[in-house]
Amino acid sequence: MGLNKRKIHDIIFEADTFSGKLFDIVLIVAIVFSVIVVMLESVESLALKYASLFYTLEWIFTILFTIEYILRVWIVKQSRKYVLSFFGMVDLLSILPTFLSLIISGTHSLMMIRTLRLLRIFRILKLTVFLGEAKTISNALKASRAKITVFLVAVLCLVFILGTVMYLIEGVFYHEETNFTSIPRSIYWAIVTLTTVGYGDIAPVTVPGQFIASIIMILGYGILAVPTGIVGAEIARHDNTSTNTQSCQNCSSEEHRDDAVYCDQCGALLNPSQNE
Amino acid sequence: MGLNKRKIHDIIFEADTFSGKLFDIVLIVAIVFSVIVVMLESVESLALKYASLFYTLEWIFTILFTIEYILRVWIVKQSRKYVLSFFGMVDLLSILPTFLSLIISGTHSLMMIRTLRLLRIFRILKLTVFLGEAKTISNALKASRAKITVFLVAVLCLVFILGTVMYLIEGVFYHEETNFTSIPRSIYWAIVTLTTVGYGDIAPVTVPGQFIASIIMILGYGILAVPTGIVGAEIARHDNTSTNTQSCQNCSSEEHRDDAVYCDQCGALLNPSQNE
Amino acid sequence: MGLNKRKIHDIIFEADTFSGKLFDIVLIVAIVFSVIVVMLESVESLALKYASLFYTLEWIFTILFTIEYILRVWIVKQSRKYVLSFFGMVDLLSILPTFLSLIISGTHSLMMIRTLRLLRIFRILKLTVFLGEAKTISNALKASRAKITVFLVAVLCLVFILGTVMYLIEGVFYHEETNFTSIPRSIYWAIVTLTTVGYGDIAPVTVPGQFIASIIMILGYGILAVPTGIVGAEIARHDNTSTNTQSCQNCSSEEHRDDAVYCDQCGALLNPSQNE
Amino acid sequence: MGLNKRKIHDIIFEADTFSGKLFDIVLIVAIVFSVIVVMLESVESLALKYASLFYTLEWIFTILFTIEYILRVWIVKQSRKYVLSFFGMVDLLSILPTFLSLIISGTHSLMMIRTLRLLRIFRILKLTVFLGEAKTISNALKASRAKITVFLVAVLCLVFILGTVMYLIEGVFYHEETNFTSIPRSIYWAIVTLTTVGYGDIAPVTVPGQFIASIIMILGYGILAVPTGIVGAEIARHDNTSTNTQSCQNCSSEEHRDDAVYCDQCGALLNPSQNE
Repeated sequence: MGLNKRKIHDIIFEADTFSGKLFDIVLIVAIVFSVIVVMLESVESLALKYASLFYTLEWIFTILFTIEYILRVWIVKQSRKYVLSFFGMVDLLSILPTFLSLIISGTHSLMMIRTLRLLRIFRILKLTVFLGEAKTISNALKASRAKITVFLVAVLCLVFILGTVMYLIEGVFYHEETNFTSIPRSIYWAIVTLTTVGYGDIAPVTVPGQFIASIIMILGYGILAVPTGIVGAEIARHDNTSTNTQSCQNCSSEEHRDDAVYCDQCGALLNPSQNE
Repeated sequence: MGLNKRKIHDIIFEADTFSGKLFDIVLIVAIVFSVIVVMLESVESLALKYASLFYTLEWIFTILFTIEYILRVWIVKQSRKYVLSFFGMVDLLSILPTFLSLIISGTHSLMMIRTLRLLRIFRILKLTVFLGEAKTISNALKASRAKITVFLVAVLCLVFILGTVMYLIEGVFYHEETNFTSIPRSIYWAIVTLTTVGYGDIAPVTVPGQFIASIIMILGYGILAVPTGIVGAEIARHDNTSTNTQSCQNCSSEEHRDDAVYCDQCGALLNPSQNE
Repeated sequence: MGLNKRKIHDIIFEADTFSGKLFDIVLIVAIVFSVIVVMLESVESLALKYASLFYTLEWIFTILFTIEYILRVWIVKQSRKYVLSFFGMVDLLSILPTFLSLIISGTHSLMMIRTLRLLRIFRILKLTVFLGEAKTISNALKASRAKITVFLVAVLCLVFILGTVMYLIEGVFYHEETNFTSIPRSIYWAIVTLTTVGYGDIAPVTVPGQFIASIIMILGYGILAVPTGIVGAEIARHDNTSTNTQSCQNCSSEEHRDDAVYCDQCGALLNPSQNE
Repeated sequence: MGLNKRKIHDIIFEADTFSGKLFDIVLIVAIVFSVIVVMLESVESLALKYASLFYTLEWIFTILFTIEYILRVWIVKQSRKYVLSFFGMVDLLSILPTFLSLIISGTHSLMMIRTLRLLRIFRILKLTVFLGEAKTISNALKASRAKITVFLVAVLCLVFILGTVMYLIEGVFYHEETNFTSIPRSIYWAIVTLTTVGYGDIAPVTVPGQFIASIIMILGYGILAVPTGIVGAEIARHDNTSTNTQSCQNCSSEEHRDDAVYCDQCGALLNPSQNE
């Protein structure tokens, strides 16, 4: 047969060739369809109506993904590393539930296992991970990780204090029917308010409560600027460094500054004709 | 008559002359009024009261737009290209429904066709498309298209996983009356929450559900920073490059201030004729 | 008396001297208090209880502001220009209602006139307008005015189309009890959703409706990046130009670029020792 | 004993040594757990069930924090300054309530005092305050304090005016059952809407009211760009200056990339010992 191990490797793992791209697209379409089937199966009225159709489709997808999984394990050099990797686990967990449903019975535990198949959606992330754009975003997020952690800790402290204050004002001072029945519930409300979600299932009814709530809202409206500023500054920086496509002719290092004259890794003169 | 084909072309397609500007403004006013009429017609109480007024106004606008459409087709050199273009189709679709209502009867299908006239609003976009400012924004959006797609795919994956988790926690574990009746419904809720819209028609009632919801809210509050950062960086870049195009004839340095008269690197006189 | 016309002018219009600052602070406190009185007067239970107190306080504030208004008209050189200016009108409109309430009777029209006194809050803006910080913000907003207008027109078009689509889906196709009873109402809902406010008084109940709603939410979540990017880029630019404090020794022009060597207005050499 | 005063000082106040880091982590874990205990105690059903467990845990935490407080007062050179500082007060207030509960009785006042222990959460902020990242954020916020104040005053004025307008439209003109019963309540609604929180407990029901509401929403959606722009520009500036501090010893050019080895302006070797 014309398909040797190397060629299958290129089709499954590379996205440069035509057949590699085709494989990726077919896989994404299959994942999206299988996810939709799992979703619709959870709608009771549809589950009763199209039970056999869902059953058939589910087995078709599972067999497809099983073949793909076996191929990956067979082809990849470090099989063990792939199987134990995050995406290797996702690949396994997304086919296992259908097989397990043959053995285990009982609607409740079955439903739990079935939804595990939704983990297939993570596999789309695996495919996009290779895109350069995803790299820029994830780099920016990684670089601003420390700042965002500090911000989140500060927000959590704020939410705890504000939630407790509201509990005291609405829950303790005014005994009548209030929605602020406990501190955790008040903190939940403070998060709903600070993030400007605002369900309205819990809302202050007293005047001082509405006053404090107003302050929380304006605060939440204002501090939204902080993570935006952090990530924005980081993306702007990563963007700038990624647009300089000149590489050093001496040491072939990349990502020089726009106005660089000498390579900052080896000291050699860069090409004087810069793009932009 | 004084109006030859060339002059009509200038009035309809150019916005530099006085009559061209006037034509644009009259057209925008006519579009806005016709859209308001269609809107008000959908309000049942008004539709009954002012039926004949709406009918008359609708025909006046339709005849106006028909004359304009015929003029455009007649004047433009590549008539076929215009008719088949996006805005050509919009122009046609915004007059057709009124004529069709003469032939087709039946309130239901008529209502459908009538609302098609609202497509006229797209024609306002056509007029603003020529503005330089719209160019900057659409360029920035086009340049960040790839990054935004990656971001949206990641958000969709997140929303699928979080929606399913909430379905399991609120819907499956706690059988009592819950709003998380199916996975699609839970995903809808996750989108409502992550985007900080928060209708409140579906809201978690269990403690673990509210805990997961809190995490989703803070996540949504935080990742809002990503598209803002992407588009912000892009607009900042497009803005800079588009406003400073003059380069020094002496030392060829670039990026001078808009109101610069002399080069700030070598002191030579810059080109006195500045754009903007 | 020691208070001549010039000294009063300095106190009322300048904020550099001690008495000028004191006057500004006293005025702000008086405005804030008078606004609070008007606010509390609108609460029915309080209005009945403290009717005479509110009446007295209102007259004290009105007399104070009347004295200030007369002083301003008397002192300022171009009295007419001040009286006809926006803030001159606000100053007059904020004292007039109390005097008018002596003549006009009838609770309904009286309530209308009373609330006009809340216009006093605009006078705080007048005071802060002189602050340099307000200048930076308003400059940034002015500079991005054109872009924001384009953005708003695009958002309005979007909201009209999406609102109509929702009206067709939720209102026309599904005749049962729906909240999308007319196009204007659906457009109102689309604005509530796109801006991520999400009251929940109108919410889609059908599956295709919730699908479209999800798209609107993600759209609204995403395009929020556009105005943020526009204003952010503008503020960053205005900020940068304001931090370069070197002025040309030849023509004394200011706001040069950070790395400027020669003045870009007259070509003279700038001070080579730059700050930062 | 091997623990002298200096060593204890290093453990409690420094975070560089292993024992210092361990102390910080143990303290954070203890604070988080004690806060969770106080929170759960406010849930009535849990308070009745696990009364004795909560009582025991509360005393364990209080004794731990008391020992820590005494150690801090004993070790620090300027005891008085620490005791009177903000975090010294927080430390004291977070242990006092438990001791006070021995003396004071009565469920209502006791509940008030108990929640004071939640102030412990502020102590986490004290620990993170030393992190460099928190410094960048707080510096950016401090630098943009003036601009944000101006913005908040403008937003407050806007909210007062818009709230009053809505009160007149919904409350006065339309007497039927409305939620806009007073100006303060309408202002509360305007804040809920402008910050895009949108509870839905108060929502306009009349057509002109919904029209004004739409304008407020779009305004709120748009002006969110202002604080984001302010803080974003500030963070971008602080970020740049703090990460690139190496200057070339040969040509004294600055702002090299973090991983630069050679100067990209003259090709000379940079200082090999880089920060970060």
